[in-house]
Amino acid sequence: MKKSAIKVGIIGFGTVGAGVARILLEKRDELKRRLGFPVVLAGIADLDVKRDRGIKLPAGILINDAKALLNNPGIDIVVELIGGIHPAKEFILEALKKGKHVVTANKALLATEGSDIFNFMKKKKVELGFEAAVAGSIPIIKIVREALIANNIQAVYGIINGTSNYILTKMTEEKVEFSDALKEAQALGYAEADPTFDVEGIDTAHKLAILASLSFGIPFSFKKIYTEGITRITPLDINFASALGYKIKLLAIAKQSGGEVELRVHPTMLPKEQLISSIDGVFNAIYVEGDAIGSQLYYGRGAGERPTASAVVSDIVDTARNIKSGSIGRIQGLGMPEISGIRIRNMENVLSRYYFRFSAIDKPGILSRIAGILGACNISIESVIQKGRKKEKAVPLVMMSHEAKEMDVVRALREIDKLPVVSDRTAFIRIEGRENN
Amino acid sequence: MKKSAIKVGIIGFGTVGAGVARILLEKRDELKRRLGFPVVLAGIADLDVKRDRGIKLPAGILINDAKALLNNPGIDIVVELIGGIHPAKEFILEALKKGKHVVTANKALLATEGSDIFNFMKKKKVELGFEAAVAGSIPIIKIVREALIANNIQAVYGIINGTSNYILTKMTEEKVEFSDALKEAQALGYAEADPTFDVEGIDTAHKLAILASLSFGIPFSFKKIYTEGITRITPLDINFASALGYKIKLLAIAKQSGGEVELRVHPTMLPKEQLISSIDGVFNAIYVEGDAIGSQLYYGRGAGERPTASAVVSDIVDTARNIKSGSIGRIQGLGMPEISGIRIRNMENVLSRYYFRFSAIDKPGILSRIAGILGACNISIESVIQKGRKKEKAVPLVMMSHEAKEMDVVRALREIDKLPVVSDRTAFIRIEGRENN
Repeated sequence: MKKSAIKVGIIGFGTVGAGVARILLEKRDELKRRLGFPVVLAGIADLDVKRDRGIKLPAGILINDAKALLNNPGIDIVVELIGGIHPAKEFILEALKKGKHVVTANKALLATEGSDIFNFMKKKKVELGFEAAVAGSIPIIKIVREALIANNIQAVYGIINGTSNYILTKMTEEKVEFSDALKEAQALGYAEADPTFDVEGIDTAHKLAILASLSFGIPFSFKKIYTEGITRITPLDINFASALGYKIKLLAIAKQSGGEVELRVHPTMLPKEQLISSIDGVFNAIYVEGDAIGSQLYYGRGAGERPTASAVVSDIVDTARNIKSGSIGRIQGLGMPEISGIRIRNMENVLSRYYFRFSAIDKPGILSRIAGILGACNISIESVIQKGRKKEKAVPLVMMSHEAKEMDVVRALREIDKLPVVSDRTAFIRIEGRENN
Repeated sequence: MKKSAIKVGIIGFGTVGAGVARILLEKRDELKRRLGFPVVLAGIADLDVKRDRGIKLPAGILINDAKALLNNPGIDIVVELIGGIHPAKEFILEALKKGKHVVTANKALLATEGSDIFNFMKKKKVELGFEAAVAGSIPIIKIVREALIANNIQAVYGIINGTSNYILTKMTEEKVEFSDALKEAQALGYAEADPTFDVEGIDTAHKLAILASLSFGIPFSFKKIYTEGITRITPLDINFASALGYKIKLLAIAKQSGGEVELRVHPTMLPKEQLISSIDGVFNAIYVEGDAIGSQLYYGRGAGERPTASAVVSDIVDTARNIKSGSIGRIQGLGMPEISGIRIRNMENVLSRYYFRFSAIDKPGILSRIAGILGACNISIESVIQKGRKKEKAVPLVMMSHEAKEMDVVRALREIDKLPVVSDRTAFIRIEGRENN
């Protein structure tokens, strides 16, 4: 298995691909010094071989045919950076089939088709690195798979989508509407023309599916994740949250208890004094709670050319070290085999505290009416705010609940929203932290 | 090299040793499931074999003779947890000599005698894990050595001594003197009877020596670290810092610039809005700045039985995986060979912003006198606070400087403290962040 140089081929010469190429070329000597052997960029495949990425490539290295790169017997590690499901999946399977190792940043693919890929790998002595698929520069995959191996992980939760965090930060700091904050994020290149994956929580759920699989030994469960985006968040709710001592973040939450795992992505109110509430802009942060470590937080850039490329190159190096030392497969597939019998908790059984904003006509008796329905549905109220009385007009009536069951909340809101004095759908946001912590 | 079980022997059955034993025993089946092979606790050596640690050990496992454990040919990995220099060093060298791998949490030993140990290892195919030596549960060694391999690290800095952070937090929150906060830390078991290593910054410097070596490819340079503890910090300075928007933390700082590395440990004023300022109590947090990642923060428990044992066990597992896959030495010694020619910057050439608290008799002209001396020494003032005028009595006169050279500050203070109107030694604290960031 000993080879003098490890050869890398990149499929997809976009932002991250360019970053990886840049690091491999600029740091070729330094990487060789650190590793004791060279890691060589041997090929890049992209449909667009014309566009100037500002990188001086060795002659003949850039081709427009991924198949040719996959057929190159000299290439040891294929780096898939085209994203999306097809043909990324086919390229990866083809590479693995040919005995090549793969590094990918493709969270959508792993979250939805990852089981196929890892099952296929079982028959082969090959490796698949995916550090860059979750939280960009933060080495959370390595941390969970290797550094925290002595722990039973109880919870992993965090901000793992920079776009939506940028938008929420903007809305909070400048008191602008979602649509305006989104436009600015798009102008700055933080959000795509079609922002659906980011603002609807889908990208966050992809990453959570991967994290949860590593943390709890469950199959990739993207489809079972309750996913709610940030499009319904308003400056009004952000202001009320702030007055109550909270910030609103799009949180990915995975918790284990009672033999079940709960997986959800939704806007979440977090106490301002919690470290994670200070994570603003495009940054990511992930909390991990384990039985030995207690609580940890990991913070860094979740996207961008160089931060993501840093993670990709660390995977390339890990794989290269395994090739050189003849230890391919020293860590099993996902780092921990699946544990059978762990169930994903139905969202309706999830317990949470809630913030409610009722749009109620300000009439005598309305508070007791709403409180009565909540009480009948087993939801007990911790605090109430009513501001700006306008007789006979709808004013926001804000309540925070103690811990309640999602299904009870759904039932209560259905009833409350039918009341004639309630003029608009009730806004609600789940709360994490403080009361229990 | 394939063996069915990997056998572990622990020398030192104190707090961390008990934590490691507990994890290896309680999680024996789960670790086997995760790794695919068993890791077995085969022996524990401690002078005290009587004390009940609340662990049910297999019969005959606890002995009072470390030599016997080192001579046991069945043991693959020796875990050194007695701390201190001797006989820890001799035990480690003996284990390595016998071809055993070593895991240690001994920062004092590595920082001061680590070069001897790593030089000795060069001739042997053995590994030495030391994740637990820096920042307890935070896997900063693995992160710097492996996950950030694509980066040139520009700076590493943080709070890496829980005891002093607890004391400073207490002083800040309850406005008590250092000595009272220390007493409480001792009562809670956070500080030892002789707290010198913690409160004088020595323990922090030990850890910084290790971090800097990994980050910059320099030899362990403990003796060259400028080290100043927290014993001279007063509630008065904490209050002034707070009024100016800063918190005081004992910071370990390693920065690279211009072919030189600057290494220092001292109380530091940090802007309140910086994440690291929120790290309170016994927690640790480390910032890493690299050319690809930008800035990252790692936060978690820096000490304690289970958090430290978590790090020790992750090293045991890494080594066990290398033994099983026949890849001992897949990562070179410290993860990066030394780079020759990097110099440690003399403290007198270090640039910093400064907080000064002059104890000056409140007489006309005193401000201009002090400002004049500072100006003559190339120190320019950013802001001045003078509170509570008491004619002809000493009142605190507080100034914050722009960036100045340490040697100029030393010279200026020497002159200022000689002035007849200055009644006490000038207090000063270095400032990081805000103006440059």
